[in-house]
Amino acid sequence: MIPDINTINQASERIKKYIHRTPILTSSIINKIFDANIFFKCENFQKAGAFKSRGACNALLSLNNQKLKKGVATHSSGNHAQALARAAHIKNIKAYIVMPDNSPKVKIDAVKNYKGIITFCSPNLKSREDTLKKIISETGATEIHPYNNYKVIAGQATAAKEFYEDINNLDFIIAPIGGGGLVSGTALSTVYFSPKTKIIAAEPEQANDAYKSFYQGKLIPSVNPNTIADGLLTSLGTLTYPIIKKYVDSIFTAKEKNIIYAMRLIWERMKIIIEPSSAVPLACIMENRSFFEKKNIGIIISGGNVDLNNLPWN
Amino acid sequence: MIPDINTINQASERIKKYIHRTPILTSSIINKIFDANIFFKCENFQKAGAFKSRGACNALLSLNNQKLKKGVATHSSGNHAQALARAAHIKNIKAYIVMPDNSPKVKIDAVKNYKGIITFCSPNLKSREDTLKKIISETGATEIHPYNNYKVIAGQATAAKEFYEDINNLDFIIAPIGGGGLVSGTALSTVYFSPKTKIIAAEPEQANDAYKSFYQGKLIPSVNPNTIADGLLTSLGTLTYPIIKKYVDSIFTAKEKNIIYAMRLIWERMKIIIEPSSAVPLACIMENRSFFEKKNIGIIISGGNVDLNNLPWN
Repeated sequence: MIPDINTINQASERIKKYIHRTPILTSSIINKIFDANIFFKCENFQKAGAFKSRGACNALLSLNNQKLKKGVATHSSGNHAQALARAAHIKNIKAYIVMPDNSPKVKIDAVKNYKGIITFCSPNLKSREDTLKKIISETGATEIHPYNNYKVIAGQATAAKEFYEDINNLDFIIAPIGGGGLVSGTALSTVYFSPKTKIIAAEPEQANDAYKSFYQGKLIPSVNPNTIADGLLTSLGTLTYPIIKKYVDSIFTAKEKNIIYAMRLIWERMKIIIEPSSAVPLACIMENRSFFEKKNIGIIISGGNVDLNNLPWN
Repeated sequence: MIPDINTINQASERIKKYIHRTPILTSSIINKIFDANIFFKCENFQKAGAFKSRGACNALLSLNNQKLKKGVATHSSGNHAQALARAAHIKNIKAYIVMPDNSPKVKIDAVKNYKGIITFCSPNLKSREDTLKKIISETGATEIHPYNNYKVIAGQATAAKEFYEDINNLDFIIAPIGGGGLVSGTALSTVYFSPKTKIIAAEPEQANDAYKSFYQGKLIPSVNPNTIADGLLTSLGTLTYPIIKKYVDSIFTAKEKNIIYAMRLIWERMKIIIEPSSAVPLACIMENRSFFEKKNIGIIISGGNVDLNNLPWN
């Protein structure tokens, strides 16, 4: 069932011991550049470096003891894998993580750091899913999908809930969109806690399945997405799409060069490390300046996990 | 006269409209690595990207109207140049900045950004000083030295003052040392506001004039300093040295590779951008682990101005 207001409030209570209430930063220079009031909710400072800790914690902590004992499992090479491994480690249970065998070493190390049990598979969806199925049948672990899971969505919704508790009168809230877990959670919190705020999803032009799905009115999967924003390669899910379709006001897309420019602008001016996916909302503002002029805008900075040896401007 | 407690309180009041009260961050992972409680006062988030805005604002705002009208001047290629240009720009007066003609473009652009009036000189101290003297004789501008100036020292002292207002019971406060403006200000605030806290200066081993001066009991200038920590190349001044000699408890030095390691650790774990100079305190903790174990330690992160095209690990 789509999370209601109580479900989101409960998620907040459930996870608050395990996550950071992240700060909201502003930059007078960036506000001047765009002639707007932009507030950045810094989930790059979140535990395990991304908002994904919210959903992973909420889903895992909602399991009963019998299920907890058998552990949790997912296939992911990104922030959800780290977040789930960390959440499991806190509760002293096992996290089985299926990762493609071509995953970057930094990502493998991060999961190992949180004692995740990694099984490598071939780098395609079938191999991922088959490997995960096998692990689950052998261990009885519970799958925690990175976004197509209402408990995960309710967890991600807590970021926007905090945003509205701290900042009033946002005209827009913008979050990057990949599988849609963050955006669907953000949409629900907006409807419940700040119904006048318009909800905008920001997507790389070169991975625009959400844009297509939204404007064509049917779920269209990603085909060969190719973007620096490595957190946004996934397609919308069957649970996230209907929420997005119902509540999101617009989806904007951004060009690769503008994503990189916006990322560097935030690094240089705000002195914070954000991953490319987190720069997509500001890149969308850059491409649609007049639309956002003079507005109060909330941006969810989704995460800060980047490979410092491989920066997009080098 | 060495700034007394009232002078530092007045500096706080004088500059507060023009600077950020910077946040203090912690990292559970870094605390675990070093088995200590480390608090980071984030002057990388300060206006113009460094604590230098405190001293520059205090010195400039202390001038009478007649002096203000004629502008201010300094020779600096670093954060003080930006901070002074910004402070002058706010008050709508002129800032004459003498910079060596081999200064990196990013630094020149930053000063231009704040409308500083740049005069280039040859890259040696004599040319810098002669050029500055000439400008001052022509314009009547007031020189604001980057550290050998009590108003500047009183301004830098406000960072530690805020630290003690926010965090009680620090066993140690550690700040990087170059010319000694930050450390002498920090020492004074410690004596006035947290007398039980021990004051430690952190210096690159390859630019260890403060270390030598402190332990040999006389002012010894830097000879061919060579460090990645480009904010710490300068030698102690005649006003900063006596304060440091009297109040600082120890000076530790750090090796280049540990400075780079500590810088990267803070980038990766805390998701904040700090300049190499700011990593020297944590590098000193790395090299003296047992000394700092279980202690409450305050570190002043001095700034965040780095050239993203030229990172030390690339």
